Amino acid sequence: MKPADTRIPPDTRVRLAKWDADDTDIIGKDKSDARGQLDEYRTRLETLQELLYAEGRHKLLIVLQAMDTAGKDSTIRHVFQGVDPLGVKVASFKAPTPYELARDYLWRVHHHVPGAGEIAIFNRSHYEDVLITRVNGWIDKAECKRRYRHINDFERLLAETGTTILKFYLHISKDEQKKRLEERRDTPEKQWKFHPGDLAVREQWDDYMDAYEAALSATSTGHAPWHVIPANSKLARNLMISRLLIETLEGLKMRYPEPEDGVAGTVID
Amino acid sequence: MKPADTRIPPDTRVRLAKWDADDTDIIGKDKSDARGQLDEYRTRLETLQELLYAEGRHKLLIVLQAMDTAGKDSTIRHVFQGVDPLGVKVASFKAPTPYELARDYLWRVHHHVPGAGEIAIFNRSHYEDVLITRVNGWIDKAECKRRYRHINDFERLLAETGTTILKFYLHISKDEQKKRLEERRDTPEKQWKFHPGDLAVREQWDDYMDAYEAALSATSTGHAPWHVIPANSKLARNLMISRLLIETLEGLKMRYPEPEDGVAGTVID
Repeated sequence: MKPADTRIPPDTRVRLAKWDADDTDIIGKDKSDARGQLDEYRTRLETLQELLYAEGRHKLLIVLQAMDTAGKDSTIRHVFQGVDPLGVKVASFKAPTPYELARDYLWRVHHHVPGAGEIAIFNRSHYEDVLITRVNGWIDKAECKRRYRHINDFERLLAETGTTILKFYLHISKDEQKKRLEERRDTPEKQWKFHPGDLAVREQWDDYMDAYEAALSATSTGHAPWHVIPANSKLARNLMISRLLIETLEGLKMRYPEPEDGVAGTVID
Repeated sequence: MKPADTRIPPDTRVRLAKWDADDTDIIGKDKSDARGQLDEYRTRLETLQELLYAEGRHKLLIVLQAMDTAGKDSTIRHVFQGVDPLGVKVASFKAPTPYELARDYLWRVHHHVPGAGEIAIFNRSHYEDVLITRVNGWIDKAECKRRYRHINDFERLLAETGTTILKFYLHISKDEQKKRLEERRDTPEKQWKFHPGDLAVREQWDDYMDAYEAALSATSTGHAPWHVIPANSKLARNLMISRLLIETLEGLKMRYPEPEDGVAGTVID
């Protein structure tokens, strides 16, 4: 699968079972070459982020959604390692507080959108408000449809005010999740991440797939597309996301700002 | 100069002229060895930050203050490169907005303090409220003294609620600033950072040194010490700050959290 193929065109009815979570085409023949490639992507991303920050014009919003263990945290760590913390802000959305619940569900999210020259990464996002809420029946189908529209409208506002939006669904299989959960359970230094209570969500796997399919279908727009990232292989996932980020940033045709008038002749005492 | 010597003991009358901005003892005999050392520090810092985040108990606040070109941004880029953006938040404080000015001057700062398991870096800080304000006569001496006390009280609150505070004054000489400003002026890809208007602050150099000396003297406390970091050499500066961070984090005796009850026996279907 090529980077461009991960993108869901608008008005597509998504069937996740047809997307291969095991796809590793992007790795190519030699795994160690691919690792070297990832290092090069990191360096390139660092340079592009510096330019984004210097130019101070564009805003980049990255949304990460996925089932447990699919690698949201790990993507942030491995893809953005090396990028200047000055220009990258991660917002991790957990269960809303009573104060947040007393407001519309986009309120707390809006607070964390990127400023000019910044990259914001949403680690989970407003999409939880059409996923966990829908799976557990806290909202009905009609409310869920209203929310898709709110979300599309909100993202259009961001896009039309200078924000480039990339949304990544990290696609793992149920079998791969089992392997990763077992590894957490059995590895002493990973056990603290294992919460037996999380298994309840795994039991709702099929319902989550339905909710994801509906959400991805309804909210992959021209101004804020979804990408389905094959994520059973961590290396393939990191390569694919890096490539998409680099292509997107390069597409912005950024330039260092012009110096102020009179810089050249300034005398410094 | 050794890392421990950078610390200003409480109730010390600071004279910055007596601190050698050119000190490079920490580099040792071989510069390329020192660069390798810095890479090792970065890796160590990455591991310690991961542990801080995993344990989720301690909070680390880093305050960076300095004259223009002394390397606040560059410290963030080079020392924290490689640290997971998930657990590090940079707050850059610029001139306050009218909304912020309508509140006490610690209000906007309080918003950005680190949460449990987090590192927050203040790129400039509440100390501007006793520096630029004092140099320009926007506050008088009595108000400035009141503010030192507010600040010490505020930082005690943070310290007594689990925050470790490290404050770094990046110490460069006026000659070194001249060299760096000239380099910015004359290097095409750095010219955008050069604002002729900033030279007005350079003309107030001595007043700023007075204001820094007064502030460092009044606010280097047991719970939130100031460190004067020799910063004419970028490599020495990065090494020194890395060392102080590593020693501080190691001093916290952090541990990975214990797994929840019943993890070992959990069956994953």
